[in-house]
Amino acid sequence: MSSPGQRPGSASPAELHAMRRAARLAATALGSTSPNPVVGCVLLGEDGAPVAEGHHLGAGHPHAEVEALKAAGPSARGATAVVTLEPCAHQGRTGPCADALLEAGVTRVVYAVDDPTPEGTGGAERLRRAGVQVAGGVLRELGEHVNELWLTAVRRRRPCVTWKFGSTLDGRTAAADGSSRWITGAAARQDAHELRAAHDAVLVGTGTLRADDPHLGLRHDVPGTPPLRVVVDRTGGIDPGARVLDDAAPTLLVVAEDAHRPRLPHGHEVLALPADGHGIDVAALLDELYRRGLRSVLLEGGARLASAFVARGLLDRVVAYLAPMLLGSRGRPVLEDFGVKNLAEGRRFETGEVRRVGEDIRLVLRAPHGPAAGPR
Amino acid sequence: MSSPGQRPGSASPAELHAMRRAARLAATALGSTSPNPVVGCVLLGEDGAPVAEGHHLGAGHPHAEVEALKAAGPSARGATAVVTLEPCAHQGRTGPCADALLEAGVTRVVYAVDDPTPEGTGGAERLRRAGVQVAGGVLRELGEHVNELWLTAVRRRRPCVTWKFGSTLDGRTAAADGSSRWITGAAARQDAHELRAAHDAVLVGTGTLRADDPHLGLRHDVPGTPPLRVVVDRTGGIDPGARVLDDAAPTLLVVAEDAHRPRLPHGHEVLALPADGHGIDVAALLDELYRRGLRSVLLEGGARLASAFVARGLLDRVVAYLAPMLLGSRGRPVLEDFGVKNLAEGRRFETGEVRRVGEDIRLVLRAPHGPAAGPR
Repeated sequence: MSSPGQRPGSASPAELHAMRRAARLAATALGSTSPNPVVGCVLLGEDGAPVAEGHHLGAGHPHAEVEALKAAGPSARGATAVVTLEPCAHQGRTGPCADALLEAGVTRVVYAVDDPTPEGTGGAERLRRAGVQVAGGVLRELGEHVNELWLTAVRRRRPCVTWKFGSTLDGRTAAADGSSRWITGAAARQDAHELRAAHDAVLVGTGTLRADDPHLGLRHDVPGTPPLRVVVDRTGGIDPGARVLDDAAPTLLVVAEDAHRPRLPHGHEVLALPADGHGIDVAALLDELYRRGLRSVLLEGGARLASAFVARGLLDRVVAYLAPMLLGSRGRPVLEDFGVKNLAEGRRFETGEVRRVGEDIRLVLRAPHGPAAGPR
Repeated sequence: MSSPGQRPGSASPAELHAMRRAARLAATALGSTSPNPVVGCVLLGEDGAPVAEGHHLGAGHPHAEVEALKAAGPSARGATAVVTLEPCAHQGRTGPCADALLEAGVTRVVYAVDDPTPEGTGGAERLRRAGVQVAGGVLRELGEHVNELWLTAVRRRRPCVTWKFGSTLDGRTAAADGSSRWITGAAARQDAHELRAAHDAVLVGTGTLRADDPHLGLRHDVPGTPPLRVVVDRTGGIDPGARVLDDAAPTLLVVAEDAHRPRLPHGHEVLALPADGHGIDVAALLDELYRRGLRSVLLEGGARLASAFVARGLLDRVVAYLAPMLLGSRGRPVLEDFGVKNLAEGRRFETGEVRRVGEDIRLVLRAPHGPAAGPR
């Protein structure tokens, strides 16, 4: 459904092609732009050929449109701007993109997705009033897809939460003795590192910390900004020698309000949050992360923490890597009991992308579009 | 690897096209031909155009080549026979196909897969000696695929066992209260019925019988021969009113040798087999089914029976329908404990076809090719 201001305009083949390029440009900055979205922009000359392009590198950097205009110089006059997100109309750290496009003499703007934020919206209207031809909703699904994490976050007013796990086909993440290296293959593990790089934070519980002592950084061959490492450690009992406390990236240790607050090496921080018998209040944690400007969280384990998010309806996406292996019921389950007694209480998702990664199968599930999901 | 007698001959585009048609013809008889394979045959005239086709309908019916020759009549002279399996050289209930092709004046034979049986093999050699041009191994993977169940069976000398299950993404087949209707969607259930129609027997344990009272017949909208219904009921305690004892198809009730042997309605049979603390000897069951001419068994549940097959390495394929749903660890697991203590003891498979069926995901796993898997 389109909102009133957004008629899916007809776009030329050159504009569609440029939109696909703009989406690829935007995607290169995933994990680095929060609290801002990823945005890509391609400027087309009057003959339909690209004259310049740009993408948003992150907070404090110019917006994608401005990057492209700078690269175009005077050839922006009479050009068409093809951009993945509606140009903004507000004065932030940078001026409104709508004004920059007008000043540069752009005569047509094609964009994919309406800006859903109160601050960002209105750019299309401003351009139209100034006589610019505007086509919104062009390849909108593509624009939604590339900005899925940010759009979900701003629509739900908390970071988009993706739960990632690797398991056997019968839903086991480790054998009875705890051995889990490796259930999934090298290709799936590489893919999971790229997924991590696209997120603002990576989240684990102390069970995972004790079992695997994970580093949660980026592999040196994976480009991107290392995500904030967030460890939920209700009792504050973390081993000071844990790898997650090294200096590869900052770590946020989340303890219960009544817990011991350990002294951490420089660069890391302790956050105390309300807790009950089930553990830390994960909704309060998401609120705090959102307030700090984080828009996406990758939940990497374990079963207990994941169950807390499922139980409270706080999972937006699931990315599962299934190995062609069977372990039987002595293996460790993917999820703990989260109170489901009958089928009607089970948590239903929508099926997304399915593909093979090496010998494993990668599946994406998404939470059904609720009222919080916005106009999509 | 090709066996010595089978050089992947070069085939013309018309022959490749005909082989694909022959494979489709063969597939229409899946589930109806045991102990024979499914086979399709297309005859091409000297100009490369099809002149006739045929497929094997099942034991007692002519072989595919003979069907096609009958349909072709005199136009078989000088024709090329394109057939999914090496023409046989033995005198069974029907004469050797190799001889029939020679008598009809066929001058070239193109086939996909060598006949691996001692009785069937030798046809290609016989044809070559008689001066016929023979190309074997043409689109062999396709020929292997369409005859996968039969080829696996004759290579392993027991029926090919496919375990089918529907579960949530976290590996649960029912909620804590046993409710399981419906975890998977209508499209997956329809697909599972078609899978059943392609098998000679469908196998369940009494746990499934008590939980669901399944009928195990074919839905009226699914064409095919209803498979033999096999129920493993160690103690012989089946409810005489169970739906599986109706007259839609014969049922074989498998009890332990020392168990009570219930009287069953006419058309059904009790088979007593050795058993130990883990249950009926499933390998002995497969031997008996093979002896009776069955070449494929679809194991439909439940966790206990499936675990017995996994534990003994008797699963050739797994077909899983995964629903985009999470139930948590109070749900019923797909498999029971079958003794795996560490990851090295887990059962590894190879990943096969992956596709969406409605909102569910259908995955095929196959047992790794062991020495018993033949020359493939």
